[in-house]
Amino acid sequence: MYLFTEIGSNVKNMKQLEYLVLAKQTKKVINELRQGVIKPYTEVIDVCWGDPHRAGIKPLSFVRQVLAACLYPQLLESDKLLVDVRQRAKRLLEACDGGSVGSYSPTTGIPEISQKVSEFIKKRDGGVPSYPENIYISPGSQWSLANILNVLVNPEASLRTGVLTPVPCHITTITSLMGMGAVVIPYYLNEEQGWTLQVEELQRALESVKGVCNPVALYVINPGNPSGLVQSRKSIQEVIQFVSEKRLFLLADEVYQDCVFGETAEFVSYKKVLAELGPPLSDTVELASFHSASKGFMGECGLRAGYVELVNVDPTVMQYIENLFSTFSGAPTLGQIALEVMTNPPQPGDPSYPLYKKEMQQIRTTLVQNVKRVYEVLNSLPGFSCQPVEGGAFAFPTIHLPPKAIQRAKEAGMEPDTFYCLRLVEEAGLLISPGCEFGQKEATYHIRFCIMTPQDTMVEILKRLSNFHTKFVKEFS
Amino acid sequence: MYLFTEIGSNVKNMKQLEYLVLAKQTKKVINELRQGVIKPYTEVIDVCWGDPHRAGIKPLSFVRQVLAACLYPQLLESDKLLVDVRQRAKRLLEACDGGSVGSYSPTTGIPEISQKVSEFIKKRDGGVPSYPENIYISPGSQWSLANILNVLVNPEASLRTGVLTPVPCHITTITSLMGMGAVVIPYYLNEEQGWTLQVEELQRALESVKGVCNPVALYVINPGNPSGLVQSRKSIQEVIQFVSEKRLFLLADEVYQDCVFGETAEFVSYKKVLAELGPPLSDTVELASFHSASKGFMGECGLRAGYVELVNVDPTVMQYIENLFSTFSGAPTLGQIALEVMTNPPQPGDPSYPLYKKEMQQIRTTLVQNVKRVYEVLNSLPGFSCQPVEGGAFAFPTIHLPPKAIQRAKEAGMEPDTFYCLRLVEEAGLLISPGCEFGQKEATYHIRFCIMTPQDTMVEILKRLSNFHTKFVKEFS
Ligand SMILES: Cc1ncc(COP(=O)(O)O)c(C=O)c1O
Ligand SMILES: Cc1ncc(COP(=O)(O)O)c(C=O)c1O
Repeated sequence: MYLFTEIGSNVKNMKQLEYLVLAKQTKKVINELRQGVIKPYTEVIDVCWGDPHRAGIKPLSFVRQVLAACLYPQLLESDKLLVDVRQRAKRLLEACDGGSVGSYSPTTGIPEISQKVSEFIKKRDGGVPSYPENIYISPGSQWSLANILNVLVNPEASLRTGVLTPVPCHITTITSLMGMGAVVIPYYLNEEQGWTLQVEELQRALESVKGVCNPVALYVINPGNPSGLVQSRKSIQEVIQFVSEKRLFLLADEVYQDCVFGETAEFVSYKKVLAELGPPLSDTVELASFHSASKGFMGECGLRAGYVELVNVDPTVMQYIENLFSTFSGAPTLGQIALEVMTNPPQPGDPSYPLYKKEMQQIRTTLVQNVKRVYEVLNSLPGFSCQPVEGGAFAFPTIHLPPKAIQRAKEAGMEPDTFYCLRLVEEAGLLISPGCEFGQKEATYHIRFCIMTPQDTMVEILKRLSNFHTKFVKEFS
Repeated sequence: MYLFTEIGSNVKNMKQLEYLVLAKQTKKVINELRQGVIKPYTEVIDVCWGDPHRAGIKPLSFVRQVLAACLYPQLLESDKLLVDVRQRAKRLLEACDGGSVGSYSPTTGIPEISQKVSEFIKKRDGGVPSYPENIYISPGSQWSLANILNVLVNPEASLRTGVLTPVPCHITTITSLMGMGAVVIPYYLNEEQGWTLQVEELQRALESVKGVCNPVALYVINPGNPSGLVQSRKSIQEVIQFVSEKRLFLLADEVYQDCVFGETAEFVSYKKVLAELGPPLSDTVELASFHSASKGFMGECGLRAGYVELVNVDPTVMQYIENLFSTFSGAPTLGQIALEVMTNPPQPGDPSYPLYKKEMQQIRTTLVQNVKRVYEVLNSLPGFSCQPVEGGAFAFPTIHLPPKAIQRAKEAGMEPDTFYCLRLVEEAGLLISPGCEFGQKEATYHIRFCIMTPQDTMVEILKRLSNFHTKFVKEFS
């Protein structure tokens, strides 16, 4: 009963219940559609999750071909698959025990794949060294993060462990933290300035918990979920200086590193900036950086694999973490293979490169167009205001709700943005998340939706949202 | 640091370190072979794990074809795949959100698959009802078990939570229990009587911890790992009576239910026996039964999926468990698909049935032959004694070690059976597990090895083991 004595008594649980209200309503709507009830739409569009395939983005052919050949090695004989697909699959099968993806993998991942991941990181960071023994592959980055938190959080200490966590924040991290008995120390991203992370705010957040808990770590998400911000090098430098001064462990959730659409935005990793800063910082700041096969343009969420790279972590703590990973069997082999392909895609000259490049460009074009559309449509809609989405998978606009709508929501015992989303799914068949699930400043309201969809889906989403919003505002004004 | 303050100070950690010693030695041996060092063998046979593919058993074609087609739907067009393969893959893809195995699945599993699993259970148990809402799919049964334990174990109670656990026992359960701060209450299976579980022994074990801890559950493994016993209906009835009297939660690890080779042995599920016993038992005994895609003749360990079915569990506790499952994303979709095929294989009349049946029969014949060989060879070897292996994936014979060998091991600070296994891998290239990893009576020694291998591999294993054993006994006599 350990986990839930905690969760039972906290706010987040309440918010999750609100999500359940939405899910229930959606189920009802879908059932009615099935039974032939006439509505202004014929199907519900669900863009609650950062899940491109669910939203209609097609998987990358190269990834799927390699996976299928690994599963069913007869395909290795077929000349329907290009030679680099077959070579890749052969090499990966050799890396699996017994030459089968059906055998258990080592608990921290298949060594050949950790090796490829470390080569990818080194290349990404312009040569900063990366060592496979510091890379732990797991069934997704949620899992990696939970394991690292498990080592950092001491639920038995008289002063509870605290972790600085952004507002707004991707919900599962908060659930993990609370589940472990940690105190979530909120720091607010600055919406007006494009959701930037400001060190004075970190400072304020830290001061505010003096004597209340024992802060041990700072969690950052870059590119942001749901904020959509891509942090600048300067901002990262400041954060590193801050954690170094305050002796905090730095948890860098960088799962959206390949999802950057802003014209001037560029992803720079925490690890790279740390190396650039040189000693003593580069030798001392403890950093965990997370990445995932669920994200990027590949978006293989269902395969469940991610990795964490640890930097400057004390060897005894590394041993603890390794033991923790060893409590369970390794990540699914097929997820690991997807991770290998993600970090080591076809190169110019490879037979699969032209198709791979074409598919990647199509997705990129789609996302750039989507983001542009979202920005234009929402910012032209009275009552909406949306910061530029530079990266990640979500738009997180503010909505200004009419006081009467807020009143009505409160009467129904609901958060106003949940009320809005409930009506939206009912009336327009569009399922998105209310801002209260991610945290927001008092008396501000937001919605979040995934921008990784085909272009026509995004056109339809924005149409439904605009029409609904106009009607909603009218109704409550 | 929560988990490891526990594990750091317990015996099991020491045993795991012994495993590390073995793994290190094996790595050394393999490296030497690669460098051309001449040894009496050319490769190491690793039968430490219950992992049929690693040991050379081939995957089932139907399973792999369906999986490959789900991953790479172009294959659905190919007439190289039989029509039932394509139909199955189509149906399963429709059950995935967005029609892709790359989308996140619901946290307790894809509903259509839970439905199929419950139909399988109902059929297996001769019509005892099974409800999909009581079935939770997860990334493997280790994970399911850890989640259920998490709900049962209260690490903050003044009297620690205890769980009755067999000796010998599959190691990861013990690691999970200890990691959660539970007390492992050992009950000894009766080796002389074929590793049977005796209620008087449960009684003794329970008495022995009076005032020391608060026993809340009984964990049983049937068919046994590593014992190889298949429990009789009568034995199961007695266990159910016992847990009912003592108000214990019953954790039935039934992952080897399809692996039964004994001529007279038959798997009967705890749930079925519970239903047969009728009220009040059938309405009150709280039961969790575990199964896994890793086991059976399919053996897809690398895909990571299993399920737990809950019976008579209090709705509030069910809610806790569901919340716990919801903390992480669902099981890998491909593992779930393997689970669907495992519980819903081709039927007579289906185009894929003939090949499926042939492959299943080949594996069965192999295992029956292996088990017979193991029994005959080991029981004719001086110093060995092996109970019949009726089911599961392992043989767990006793070895009588010469006193001088025991002496030598102790001088080296090692368990005697670890010492034996170390010498075995070094001298004969055979990697197996020492009994001390699973628990055994004082001054008794065992070894464990997987019996799911091709027949010629088993012949080779027994040859290496016999030759080595004869030399080893001579050396130390
Ligand atoms: C910021 C962030 N981190 C981690 C995750 C989890 O990813 P995974 O599927 O690897 O567990 C997500 C998923 O939405 C995310 O948005
Ligand atoms: C008795 C028993 N239970 C559970 C498991 C774990 O299986 P899974 O791969 O589903 O986690 C094993 C694996 O060897 C086992 O032997």
